[in-house]
Amino acid sequence: MTDTTLDYAVLTDPARLDETLARATAAARALRTIPDDVRAGYLDAVADALDAARDELVAIATRETHLAEARLEGEVARTSGQLRLLAGVVREGSYLEAILDAAAPSATPPRPDLRRMLIPLGPIVNFAASNFPFAFSVAGGDTAAAWAAGCPVIVKAHSGHRELSRRTAEVVTAALAEADAPDGMFILAEGREVATALVAHPAIKAGSFTGSVAGGRALFDIASSRPDPIPFYGELGSVNPVVIAPLAASRRAQELAEGLAGSFTLGSGQFCTKPGIVFVPSGSDIAERAAAAVGEPEPANLLTPSIADAFRDGWAELSALPGVDVVSAATAGVDGVTPGIVRVDVEAFLTEPRLREEIFGPATLLVEYGDLAAAVEAVDVIEGSLTGTVHADDDDDIAGVVAALSERVGRLLFGGWPTGVAVTWSQQHGGPWPATTSIFTSVGATAVRRFQRPLALQSAPASQLPPALQDDNPWGIPRRVDGVLVAGAPR
Amino acid sequence: MTDTTLDYAVLTDPARLDETLARATAAARALRTIPDDVRAGYLDAVADALDAARDELVAIATRETHLAEARLEGEVARTSGQLRLLAGVVREGSYLEAILDAAAPSATPPRPDLRRMLIPLGPIVNFAASNFPFAFSVAGGDTAAAWAAGCPVIVKAHSGHRELSRRTAEVVTAALAEADAPDGMFILAEGREVATALVAHPAIKAGSFTGSVAGGRALFDIASSRPDPIPFYGELGSVNPVVIAPLAASRRAQELAEGLAGSFTLGSGQFCTKPGIVFVPSGSDIAERAAAAVGEPEPANLLTPSIADAFRDGWAELSALPGVDVVSAATAGVDGVTPGIVRVDVEAFLTEPRLREEIFGPATLLVEYGDLAAAVEAVDVIEGSLTGTVHADDDDDIAGVVAALSERVGRLLFGGWPTGVAVTWSQQHGGPWPATTSIFTSVGATAVRRFQRPLALQSAPASQLPPALQDDNPWGIPRRVDGVLVAGAPR
Repeated sequence: MTDTTLDYAVLTDPARLDETLARATAAARALRTIPDDVRAGYLDAVADALDAARDELVAIATRETHLAEARLEGEVARTSGQLRLLAGVVREGSYLEAILDAAAPSATPPRPDLRRMLIPLGPIVNFAASNFPFAFSVAGGDTAAAWAAGCPVIVKAHSGHRELSRRTAEVVTAALAEADAPDGMFILAEGREVATALVAHPAIKAGSFTGSVAGGRALFDIASSRPDPIPFYGELGSVNPVVIAPLAASRRAQELAEGLAGSFTLGSGQFCTKPGIVFVPSGSDIAERAAAAVGEPEPANLLTPSIADAFRDGWAELSALPGVDVVSAATAGVDGVTPGIVRVDVEAFLTEPRLREEIFGPATLLVEYGDLAAAVEAVDVIEGSLTGTVHADDDDDIAGVVAALSERVGRLLFGGWPTGVAVTWSQQHGGPWPATTSIFTSVGATAVRRFQRPLALQSAPASQLPPALQDDNPWGIPRRVDGVLVAGAPR
Repeated sequence: MTDTTLDYAVLTDPARLDETLARATAAARALRTIPDDVRAGYLDAVADALDAARDELVAIATRETHLAEARLEGEVARTSGQLRLLAGVVREGSYLEAILDAAAPSATPPRPDLRRMLIPLGPIVNFAASNFPFAFSVAGGDTAAAWAAGCPVIVKAHSGHRELSRRTAEVVTAALAEADAPDGMFILAEGREVATALVAHPAIKAGSFTGSVAGGRALFDIASSRPDPIPFYGELGSVNPVVIAPLAASRRAQELAEGLAGSFTLGSGQFCTKPGIVFVPSGSDIAERAAAAVGEPEPANLLTPSIADAFRDGWAELSALPGVDVVSAATAGVDGVTPGIVRVDVEAFLTEPRLREEIFGPATLLVEYGDLAAAVEAVDVIEGSLTGTVHADDDDDIAGVVAALSERVGRLLFGGWPTGVAVTWSQQHGGPWPATTSIFTSVGATAVRRFQRPLALQSAPASQLPPALQDDNPWGIPRRVDGVLVAGAPR
């Protein structure tokens, strides 16, 4: 089937939930019998289809999200790239965590033949984010990871880019159909009522979400309070603390100010990794230099009217808090928003919890510290974040800062800025609450593990063993055999 | 310090929670700086100390739990064995999941140097179980797994073996002190009030539990509804379905009946893997043969009076349900309990949910099916279990049964009986709700992953890299480097 104008059926009616999820459950069973390399081919097929439809999709996205065309084109490439990365992860086979232990009849007690691998959880509901209309949306990272695990996905579309979601869903559905993937492996859903019903439905085995703390927490609570609780992987809020050490601050103020200005205004500050809290030595002029580097840009529209409202309100509250010095005032009007920078001293920061809350959009808070011990104390009161960053020269003593940030973040940067998340084997995009609700990443190769669970087969006859656990390792995957890790033989 | 009669401080007073957990938090930080092979030595030291104290501990356990001495001696060996297995897991190093991706400055977008490993979550609270006073108690599997991950452990003692718990804690504390382990790496707690306060306390980063569905669910709900939810790994309830296929049933009735009789009465039926629901072909006399094999044993005391009460009430309800045929009546009196076997047909099983509930103790339910399709339909209404078992001859057609059980269990046995859980790399002791609340195992090498989270270091200078992520791999652990899994070099 190559007709990408098919009449795509979107799940909008809660009354159709059972029948729709029956399709997903049937797909989950079908996927269990399909070889890994065939399933990897589905991900490649979707990647190719997205690339082929790039111009059409970007045109819709530009209109719906106000994001720049070049950024959106890059995001399509990232999205197809992560589908291909995860297809490669599936083919490589380590993700199955295959372990074989031979029987030990003479052990005390005797041990049976036991072989363990990870299997897919079953149908997943994935809530699309507003700020990455491709990479964290319909065919984004969570969808790719669930497919890589062998799970069907029901995507709850984000209302901020509804037309793009539907059109992407058509492209995805056509690509999967052409690749002969099982019906029900991908389903698009819309609407709040359907969304919450999905999380509560017995056929759904896990959920993933990228968005606000309030929204994610509400869904997490539904998932956790089911009669049969399910994992709910939320990526919620993150202030991404940055610590600029004294010597680096004094020697490289201009470079650091420019880097900060570029990072907190990138995409109008609408990244989960935006540097929201920046510790600088007292008396540093990095705030003023950053304000100068930002200049007076044209107002930019944020992703949705509600995000713009939240930015305006958040900025108004932040800039009016006691002790807050407005270095450069943000504006929020009908034409859009402009960036803002505020500054407090570390004592105010330690006493006022509202200074530690994320503001989604182009604003950042500089916190002046007396010495790094005070900065460490302040880092210790910040909630979990996706990232933490240290800017230091070789002769800055950052041991305490590194230890404190390590306890609070999922990715620790030495230099550079946190915006920009490489999709790789080693990436970690997640951290202690509220950065995420889980002990996993939502980006990169290991994101797949969220949608798997172990199954051990005891004393299984050869005829009952899946390829990953057969004696002769027909897929050539890495396995642990009798305690020893054995590298795979590439196919 | 070799004095095992030290005055061990047990946490019983909620007012002392903060100061006690400050010790655990300090221990967590100390553990981050201690090399893996040193920490592995702590586990070995505790294992040696338990073995050395075996006779004294078993004498206490026999008195407190009514379990047989030989069984308890074996359980001490299992407990020290799993500490040593996990020490080996730490030394082998795969558990760190180290991944190194070199910088790719010419990629689009450019990729930084990124290195990821798993780090310990922090202080863990572990709720001891009643039915394994060693292997799932003070120094049991969850404690060992948390230590292996690098986490301090606060164990909530089970009131069913309080003296044993305190004495074991003394042995553990002395062994850790002699090995120069950080203070606060192990703490014993008692009492319901302290227990729930621990799960809610900000210093606690995860919980583990083995016990009843009601108790585990209550703690899971506390953990999930914290301002900052934490993972709570509960191993709760399991009926462990067994399907005996028609040809196996007709050809091997006596062998299967004897195996069933041995398995469901083992340890007076007080195993989470007890076969509680057994599907047999209509007209099979396996139930009668099993009753004959059980014979008329002396009454046995269950672990605690409340477990005995629950068994008596559960048996009374089960045996009075419509359609239930009592093949062999259990008894529950002041002298203890005796085993019981009941039987229903599959139609009754499909309509009466109370037939599918776990009864902890020596009782099992045989369900008669007309054909295997009916057995599959019945398996599909059972909740998640730790194990599922198929007894089949080569010419039995079990494809449907295997598929249905695979969706519902964590360990699938082909022949044999589910009681008896080997502690190995490949073991899986966990399954869909209510077998566990998680996608992990609580037994075996991979149990460690529950107490870790990923941390990625971006562009870190060599001086900031932990050994597991250094270029020259000083610990010789298996790592993934630029996408390729590289086996470790044993030290």
